[in-house]
Amino acid sequence: MKTLSVALEGNRSYPIHIGSGVLGDAQLLRSAVCGSKVLIVSNATVARHYLSWVREALTDLVVDELLLPDGEAFKTLQTWEGILSLLLERNHGRDTTLIALGGGVIGDMVGFAAACYQRGVGFVQIPTTLLAQVDSSVGGKTAVNHLLGKNMIGAFHQPQAVLIDTRCLATLPAREFAAGMAEVIKYGIIADRSFFEWLEGAAGQLLAGDSEALTYAIERSCAIKARIVAEDETEQGVRALLNLGHTYGHAIEAEQGYGNWLHGEAVAAGMVLACRTAVLRQQMTEAELERVIQLLLRFSLPVTGPRTMDADAFLPHMRRDKKVKAGRIRLVLPIGIGNAEVADSVTEETLREAINDCGRCAS
Amino acid sequence: MKTLSVALEGNRSYPIHIGSGVLGDAQLLRSAVCGSKVLIVSNATVARHYLSWVREALTDLVVDELLLPDGEAFKTLQTWEGILSLLLERNHGRDTTLIALGGGVIGDMVGFAAACYQRGVGFVQIPTTLLAQVDSSVGGKTAVNHLLGKNMIGAFHQPQAVLIDTRCLATLPAREFAAGMAEVIKYGIIADRSFFEWLEGAAGQLLAGDSEALTYAIERSCAIKARIVAEDETEQGVRALLNLGHTYGHAIEAEQGYGNWLHGEAVAAGMVLACRTAVLRQQMTEAELERVIQLLLRFSLPVTGPRTMDADAFLPHMRRDKKVKAGRIRLVLPIGIGNAEVADSVTEETLREAINDCGRCAS
Repeated sequence: MKTLSVALEGNRSYPIHIGSGVLGDAQLLRSAVCGSKVLIVSNATVARHYLSWVREALTDLVVDELLLPDGEAFKTLQTWEGILSLLLERNHGRDTTLIALGGGVIGDMVGFAAACYQRGVGFVQIPTTLLAQVDSSVGGKTAVNHLLGKNMIGAFHQPQAVLIDTRCLATLPAREFAAGMAEVIKYGIIADRSFFEWLEGAAGQLLAGDSEALTYAIERSCAIKARIVAEDETEQGVRALLNLGHTYGHAIEAEQGYGNWLHGEAVAAGMVLACRTAVLRQQMTEAELERVIQLLLRFSLPVTGPRTMDADAFLPHMRRDKKVKAGRIRLVLPIGIGNAEVADSVTEETLREAINDCGRCAS
Repeated sequence: MKTLSVALEGNRSYPIHIGSGVLGDAQLLRSAVCGSKVLIVSNATVARHYLSWVREALTDLVVDELLLPDGEAFKTLQTWEGILSLLLERNHGRDTTLIALGGGVIGDMVGFAAACYQRGVGFVQIPTTLLAQVDSSVGGKTAVNHLLGKNMIGAFHQPQAVLIDTRCLATLPAREFAAGMAEVIKYGIIADRSFFEWLEGAAGQLLAGDSEALTYAIERSCAIKARIVAEDETEQGVRALLNLGHTYGHAIEAEQGYGNWLHGEAVAAGMVLACRTAVLRQQMTEAELERVIQLLLRFSLPVTGPRTMDADAFLPHMRRDKKVKAGRIRLVLPIGIGNAEVADSVTEETLREAINDCGRCAS
């Protein structure tokens, strides 16, 4: 087992435990809970496999359970309100602990419920999808969607601990595994060229579910994210780099209706669009772009947006992105492979050209 | 004009400007706004009197306005969601500023909307009621009500500035003025015996609307609150003292339906109940309790709960209080006048006796 630490100010630093068998270690989970009451939130699919492991670690506490409907379409204020109402009905106090057992949707909603219940209670993340393990469970971003935009309503609220068991990936559908790999590849592009190269070599092992390779890929991803989050908890600066591909990606998700494209799939296509934009601005070579595309394709990820989406479909969504400042679209762009920047000087002409170029690849 | 500062960690310290004419000083408000867009949230009653003052200070910005229905009954997730939807519809970015122009209901909801919109944007408090001026606008507590409890859903989110114009009190209904005085008196009881004595002497001037006396009363109240908030921003310890009378008071509000009793009225009756509890525990004299009652009566405030509420009506609500820890009711109790503590050892017997004693006074 590996343990990383997210180093935050105050007494809010927290550990990320990664490995095969983490969830079998009852003491690890029990020690992350402070009060005498717990609410475990999960969905039916995940609960069937893993809920008993979690329950067994908490036999000395009052444990409530809530199973939510599965999928991004339910990441709404309504579902979130249901969590809060249950906490009130069951008389949970400010010393309760919420446990998010599931993918990113569960983690984001439970985290946001923990952020707002009685102005903030503790929570523990047990991410069961690769995407949640390498991305949403680390860093304290919590949110729900709004009809007019993804993750538009939320809070920064750090968990007390993150427990990642690679065994959970054995039951993950292939398409969701690939979606998680999009974020793993992202860390290589924005921050670690040698990790990117390792991924190019280890793709076969990862696809075969090799436990050691998976643990290393998750550990490197979490370490890069933890370092960036510690540097910039509330996204005033460097943390924005984690959004490579997300401005384009969110536009795809919003346009196609949440849930039709997986988040990681939209990010994969969005990263290619961002790389294409970088090529047009001569801060990435065509050869590097091609390596990004080839690695994404190894994991069967999309490398273009939907055929029906032209620049006029992308731009209104991009103008609503949370990074927009004083009306200007701000875009994370790679600088070669292993480095990136936030650019606010990308002209609309360049954006349109990048979108059109990628559209041509698709047809 | 007086300017206090709430000293918080990071770059989050903010000024409180107090005086007659503060809202006429356009520069003061303009300098509290950072981005290029603003949403002013108010209600029709307040807007009629003061909205033009605010608008005039912001002529160089894009200003959206939203008038909400008036009253505690509308301090709901539904109203809050309406604020967030408007921000999205009008394409407000993360650099927007929300301005809360109104009483505590407006301030709490707008603050909570600012806390959650795109995971946190800036906001400015312009409290127009005495209660909001001395209490809810200072300290960063934001929230909405839930059917099962008051202020149960919210966040800690500090404003960028608080602007208090005593001229607003001229249009305030007498009953609401009195409700604000309950919180002013609270500061004397929990933290400042000489301020309590000053209030006993200055009650006539305050009731007559004397501007100098009002400014002093607000300034002392805000100074005491600012000191306590700076010491304990997220209510881990000393900040709980600000809740004197609130555990009993919230029970009254919840039982009677929000809005029938004003918050300050419920707090006034709740403070008497807390003082009575303190007398039973021999940490306050009967004579001190009598002084508290007499001062509250000077401002025509209630000094007992509703006649129909016995201990069995109070206790279920009190067990749901945010201060409850490990199932124990924790109560703020005065130690004489000018000092207070959080007690978690009050027996149910004592609670029942205090409630019954006060019930007898009422009949």
